[in-house]
Amino acid sequence: MSEIEHPEPWDVISTLIAENDPEKLGEYIDELSGADKSLAISRLDDGVRASLLDQLTTEDAADLMKDIFDDQAADLIEDLPTEKAAAIIDEMASDEQADILGHLEVDRAEEILQEMDPEEAEDARLLLQSPVNSAGGMMITEFLVYRESMLVTDVIRDLRKNRKEYSDYEVQYTYITSEQDELVGVLPLRQLLLSGKNVPLSELAIPDPVHVSASASLTELKSIFDHSGFIGIPVSDSNAKILGVVLRKAVLEAVDEADNRAFLNFSGIVGGEELRSMPLLSRSFRRLSWLSVNIVLNMIAASVIAFYQDTLESAIVLAVFLPIISDMSGCSGNQAVAVSIRELTLGQVKSHELFRVLSKEAGVGLINGIVLGALIGGAALAWKGNIYLGMVVGGALALNSLFAVCLGGMIPLMLSHRKMDPALASSPILTTITDMCGFFFVLSFATALLPKLGV
Amino acid sequence: MSEIEHPEPWDVISTLIAENDPEKLGEYIDELSGADKSLAISRLDDGVRASLLDQLTTEDAADLMKDIFDDQAADLIEDLPTEKAAAIIDEMASDEQADILGHLEVDRAEEILQEMDPEEAEDARLLLQSPVNSAGGMMITEFLVYRESMLVTDVIRDLRKNRKEYSDYEVQYTYITSEQDELVGVLPLRQLLLSGKNVPLSELAIPDPVHVSASASLTELKSIFDHSGFIGIPVSDSNAKILGVVLRKAVLEAVDEADNRAFLNFSGIVGGEELRSMPLLSRSFRRLSWLSVNIVLNMIAASVIAFYQDTLESAIVLAVFLPIISDMSGCSGNQAVAVSIRELTLGQVKSHELFRVLSKEAGVGLINGIVLGALIGGAALAWKGNIYLGMVVGGALALNSLFAVCLGGMIPLMLSHRKMDPALASSPILTTITDMCGFFFVLSFATALLPKLGV
Repeated sequence: MSEIEHPEPWDVISTLIAENDPEKLGEYIDELSGADKSLAISRLDDGVRASLLDQLTTEDAADLMKDIFDDQAADLIEDLPTEKAAAIIDEMASDEQADILGHLEVDRAEEILQEMDPEEAEDARLLLQSPVNSAGGMMITEFLVYRESMLVTDVIRDLRKNRKEYSDYEVQYTYITSEQDELVGVLPLRQLLLSGKNVPLSELAIPDPVHVSASASLTELKSIFDHSGFIGIPVSDSNAKILGVVLRKAVLEAVDEADNRAFLNFSGIVGGEELRSMPLLSRSFRRLSWLSVNIVLNMIAASVIAFYQDTLESAIVLAVFLPIISDMSGCSGNQAVAVSIRELTLGQVKSHELFRVLSKEAGVGLINGIVLGALIGGAALAWKGNIYLGMVVGGALALNSLFAVCLGGMIPLMLSHRKMDPALASSPILTTITDMCGFFFVLSFATALLPKLGV
Repeated sequence: MSEIEHPEPWDVISTLIAENDPEKLGEYIDELSGADKSLAISRLDDGVRASLLDQLTTEDAADLMKDIFDDQAADLIEDLPTEKAAAIIDEMASDEQADILGHLEVDRAEEILQEMDPEEAEDARLLLQSPVNSAGGMMITEFLVYRESMLVTDVIRDLRKNRKEYSDYEVQYTYITSEQDELVGVLPLRQLLLSGKNVPLSELAIPDPVHVSASASLTELKSIFDHSGFIGIPVSDSNAKILGVVLRKAVLEAVDEADNRAFLNFSGIVGGEELRSMPLLSRSFRRLSWLSVNIVLNMIAASVIAFYQDTLESAIVLAVFLPIISDMSGCSGNQAVAVSIRELTLGQVKSHELFRVLSKEAGVGLINGIVLGALIGGAALAWKGNIYLGMVVGGALALNSLFAVCLGGMIPLMLSHRKMDPALASSPILTTITDMCGFFFVLSFATALLPKLGV
């Protein structure tokens, strides 16, 4: 009996590149899922990867760029001849162009922009000027716009004529402007179906459409889409001229990305997504930048222990409990940090509502502190048969849990109030403070009760 | 000078309810953003909240339900008279109906289903039977379907006639079926614009449309949408009969929710979103369920220290370093855990590729271990002027960091391979093992070099 071998996609791609069969290569890649495309490219040998885009047609290459991670696409584009790179980027939608150009060195991006179709380049520059997560940075500049004086039949004629070009457009609306190019209405495409041919657009359009400025933030956009069924919202300048359209899809994807960044920052991965296909030294360095701050904070916290060396020497058993108290207080506090980060993201708490959070966390901290304190105190009593030891470690953990939970709930609000990223900094700040307090509670209680600890 | 007071939305709502002005109440709530609606409802007094839905019209109540969290909506619906609850749910789209009914007790949901419009109830039951994150659980059952023998003009007539009803539909496609009700094609609505009136749909439809079964998973759906520009995908049964449509929006939202669940689980918040408006005891209990497992694991790990009591007694300074080594190894390991969780989510690593992860993490672990070991060893040397102390703590942290990083990278793959949630269990398993090893390394090295530690 023999098993059928499923060759890995990166092996198939390498073979097809070696066979110099661009058509089959394009077809094979097109049928992979987005995740498999990224995966396959990250697993190719460096030399093979370099010749991949060379072999693909411009259209196939552009299609591939859309589906993989932006930094992967930028890596592939970076080393291509400028002319070929420009031709591939010309084929893409404006928001995708900006995503990739934004991941290149500024000089390299400028070289490519110079070679691009001037109209495409102008649109891409417009997006690149705006912050990535603003309406201006997320919009597409491919949209349909007609004057309000036009008739339904004019629009249908135009749609028929440019059918092929428009088929790539993702928007389901047309935008209606005055003679002065001001946005005055929006018209769902299917509305055209239901109207007479000689009706002017001004009669059909929904007036005063929701629109945003290029500087609108991700939070504002999310709130508008949460509140409505729109597929896209027009972006306009101060003269009410339409610049582009932000799609719901782009906003949902950006929100997901922001949430993921919170997860990564919270776990000590800074500077965005880390994939294991990235170079060793950059992965190592990015992780170290966070760890090296942390180890200094850790040493500061542990210095509290050094002050109580005499107590520890007299009751060495306490050394067993110090790491437990440090770790458990960190866990309890981090739960409260996570709830605050989520409530901030969901708009369920404002950054000035410290007192509300404190009052809500104090109850949880009190109950959980008592339970955890009783558990560890009971364990100490059972182990050493000394009720005072149980009271010292149990009391210290109970008190420190209450403190950690209250502090953990409030730190993200304080950081957010100062426009700092709560996911990145909350946990290191929290654990440093709670470690110091935890060590202080155990060791000072023990010092006070030293004669009774029976050691 | 006086500042203008902006009353909080929950105060305005309470006032309007007290004034018994349903119209103004409905209008005011409608203008709040989704996040503000949730926030306001969570901050209402219990008594006021109970009378909120009573005062709103059925349509306004249904609109409100859509914008707030599902469990909030379920709470509001739960206590209403069954007839009113059913009337409100009748007004909603099928996927929203299922979301809310799925959050109620089974018996209560059944009572409401009995009172609902029979057709609506049948659709809702269909969705409730499927797992929440499957195609069948996420689809909407409002869609447009026509026979392939029909002409464009027939469709346009139907669209005009049912204009009002269809205006709520979010889909931009019509689905085309054979005389046997089998799905045979898809037709973008705007295509109807560009065709002659007497063309049969069979000539216009795109044949063999992408479709999925009701059991298709979130991962499969995400992969299809990543790979295409579709706004929705039809869901069909084994006879190719169309059951519903999964929208890209629903899939993006479910992916975001799954990612957020990973963040929450990773931080020790289990059982889904925790909001501070939830009851104290349930919040406390959910957090404790995770903490109490953790404290037992912590005590097991710390028991290693107890075995080396004699060494510690002779070199009490080590007690300062034990919590640092425990915490730093946990941090380094959790970075690798986070990268593995993200790579699994993004499909960039398969759960059997342990060796690949090990080889990629070993390099990072080695470099970061050496740097961190040198930092802490240097600090120990500077503090106590004893090179052997530096070697013991530096060597132990270096070795344990390497070990923690390799283990942290692999644990999520092993859990995922056994179909367990890596975000929830990875960190407690990791830190228990790395604590034990870290304590063992420091204390066994110190035991071997005890005469040279100079204390």
